[in-house]
Amino acid sequence: MKFCSQCGAAVTWQIPPDDNRERFVCTSCHLVHYQNPRIITGCLPMWEDRVLLCLRAINPRKGYWTLPAGFLENGETIAAGAVRETFEEAHARVDNLQLYTVFSLPHISQAYMFFRADLSDLEFRSGPESLDVRLFHEHEIPWDSLAFPVIKQSLEFYFADRQSGNYPVRSRDIHISRRR
Amino acid sequence: MKFCSQCGAAVTWQIPPDDNRERFVCTSCHLVHYQNPRIITGCLPMWEDRVLLCLRAINPRKGYWTLPAGFLENGETIAAGAVRETFEEAHARVDNLQLYTVFSLPHISQAYMFFRADLSDLEFRSGPESLDVRLFHEHEIPWDSLAFPVIKQSLEFYFADRQSGNYPVRSRDIHISRRR
Repeated sequence: MKFCSQCGAAVTWQIPPDDNRERFVCTSCHLVHYQNPRIITGCLPMWEDRVLLCLRAINPRKGYWTLPAGFLENGETIAAGAVRETFEEAHARVDNLQLYTVFSLPHISQAYMFFRADLSDLEFRSGPESLDVRLFHEHEIPWDSLAFPVIKQSLEFYFADRQSGNYPVRSRDIHISRRR
Repeated sequence: MKFCSQCGAAVTWQIPPDDNRERFVCTSCHLVHYQNPRIITGCLPMWEDRVLLCLRAINPRKGYWTLPAGFLENGETIAAGAVRETFEEAHARVDNLQLYTVFSLPHISQAYMFFRADLSDLEFRSGPESLDVRLFHEHEIPWDSLAFPVIKQSLEFYFADRQSGNYPVRSRDIHISRRR
């Protein structure tokens, strides 16, 4: 950030009055520009005992498998964002969403949330951000080709919890010093 | 938003190429400025069978009681933000955080998350954003003077779940058409 989005003047990086951390502050109108973590919301879509994964067509992690997910938009509930992303990436319709995993990724200022969900039908196909969309039995999961740690963790939680049929919400912090 | 924060030129409100919703787009460098919901994180701090509430010293809802909470900062886990806000607003130290409530408020593009937490000691006192900080038994809760619907809902869930001693994560959408 170099310029104030309200008045167009230059910004500086400083601690504003009555604050305790550095922010971008306008040198002219003195507006403080707060920057905050973003939410990524998605689904773990199930059909009988299989889970739907998407092969990423875009970077980061092009060519790796992921659960359908993406940035929550303004004006949207977290669950509605998960439904939208599942449709955009896999043209898949889901219902019966249940919040299942919540991850903090402070190194990239993101929070991930995944919902368990039932596929409504088998009419899925690749959206523009996916090269392929498939259903996987547990023994077919491409564990070495998953896109992100949150995907692996969510699937591990899911297959472990499926033993008991009890799916408490799982909340974890993921600290990674390198860029993905 | 009127000006591009990267180059200082004017922005327009339009649907960018390969997108499906309106964004602020720079007329000169064509950067798309995404805007996303923010996370508010806080605690439901307990001491024996009492819960800590803060009397708000600032608007919105000055003079109403709230759980300590505030905007998650970049580089912070959701739980760390809840601990920080509890200290800033009530000078209270907490431990044993357990994610408890998750709310979507699409009308104001916010997600609220509260953690059940144990007060570490009784050395709490008002921070700059609080007029008073007190512990309340269930029968003392000022139900008609709570600041926000998410506070009332979190306390209602808590006292109901306390009957069984089982505290599953509670996830709800709150739709309000008017401004608070």
